[in-house]
Amino acid sequence: MRLFDFNRAPNPRRARMFIAEKGLDIEKVNVNLFRMEQLSDEFTSINPLGTVPVLETDDGTYLTETVAICCYLENIHPEPVLMGHTATEKALVLNWNNIVEQHGMLSIAEMLRNWSPGFRDRVFPGKINYHQMPELIERGRLRTLQFFDMIETRLQLVNWLAGEQFSLADISLLAISDFASWVEIDPLENRSALQAWYTRISERSSVKA
Amino acid sequence: MRLFDFNRAPNPRRARMFIAEKGLDIEKVNVNLFRMEQLSDEFTSINPLGTVPVLETDDGTYLTETVAICCYLENIHPEPVLMGHTATEKALVLNWNNIVEQHGMLSIAEMLRNWSPGFRDRVFPGKINYHQMPELIERGRLRTLQFFDMIETRLQLVNWLAGEQFSLADISLLAISDFASWVEIDPLENRSALQAWYTRISERSSVKA
Repeated sequence: MRLFDFNRAPNPRRARMFIAEKGLDIEKVNVNLFRMEQLSDEFTSINPLGTVPVLETDDGTYLTETVAICCYLENIHPEPVLMGHTATEKALVLNWNNIVEQHGMLSIAEMLRNWSPGFRDRVFPGKINYHQMPELIERGRLRTLQFFDMIETRLQLVNWLAGEQFSLADISLLAISDFASWVEIDPLENRSALQAWYTRISERSSVKA
Repeated sequence: MRLFDFNRAPNPRRARMFIAEKGLDIEKVNVNLFRMEQLSDEFTSINPLGTVPVLETDDGTYLTETVAICCYLENIHPEPVLMGHTATEKALVLNWNNIVEQHGMLSIAEMLRNWSPGFRDRVFPGKINYHQMPELIERGRLRTLQFFDMIETRLQLVNWLAGEQFSLADISLLAISDFASWVEIDPLENRSALQAWYTRISERSSVKA
């Protein structure tokens, strides 16, 4: 089993933190996004989307979505449970993980990739170039703030994003809460429940993974 | 258990088709998106995102993401299996379902919502308005075609999107293959593997759900 990884990017961090929580030791292969190694023929033959993380399983399957990588590891190494015990818990973990991906991650990425000179003509991952649109920076900022407001409302009711158990949804939220600093947003500012949650999750050693 | 539904939208269709494949009978509550009922105080107290489908489970939990609704139903009604048997299969279903959501659904939605007069100032669901940007129509079109090209490559290798078993990933792909007609794209044109897959899935009675 091998994890194609890059230590500066938020999605690989989710996979590494999940692996650390499980207490697993998985070989890592560095794909340097700063050097565009994800667009090499070698890597796009593994993942045509040109994204990391990718998990190569022992049977040679390539999983290219973080949620799928975590689902696989959860099934082969069930303890500690990170994706819910009951049908309701399992569903809530996927529910909040999806919200974090589609409303949080994509909004921050929209802002960053339309703003940073490093992403000029690289607004989406993959081989096809899309040019930056400055209008999308402000739109991404508003959507990011709107996302963290929704999360604040949720965390006023529960200790962990999917309910009373720490889960993949929290790992995903941590990754993007830190990712927000790339676009000069501090999600903890004026959001006390999120701040308390951040303090709580920061006590876990897996955050350094 | 109740499903908040709207029969013209692609995501509720995924939930309905999944329910039909399971042979379940679940009460439906119509939320008329054409009349903006999803933004009523009553509905946003259930789902602040203002989207359908939403599943209200028997314990009163609201699931607002289609993948979470399906995960819940898969766990309480395992047969027929629609989200994989083995760890690898389960992961591949989530993997491809996620790709369909984030690369297919979001691209078509980007095109449609920036184009159709019906979505003026409604580029994203929810209570906050974002204005249309005509430039995003062409970008959405290119991303949609790029997505279906990737799917074509995949379906040249396998009968069903996640492998050899029909799954949620196929249900999601069907919903957006038909959704593409809203933006005047015929995904089957010049894509023979996708065409064969479409013929195969159209034989299932659940497609009418």
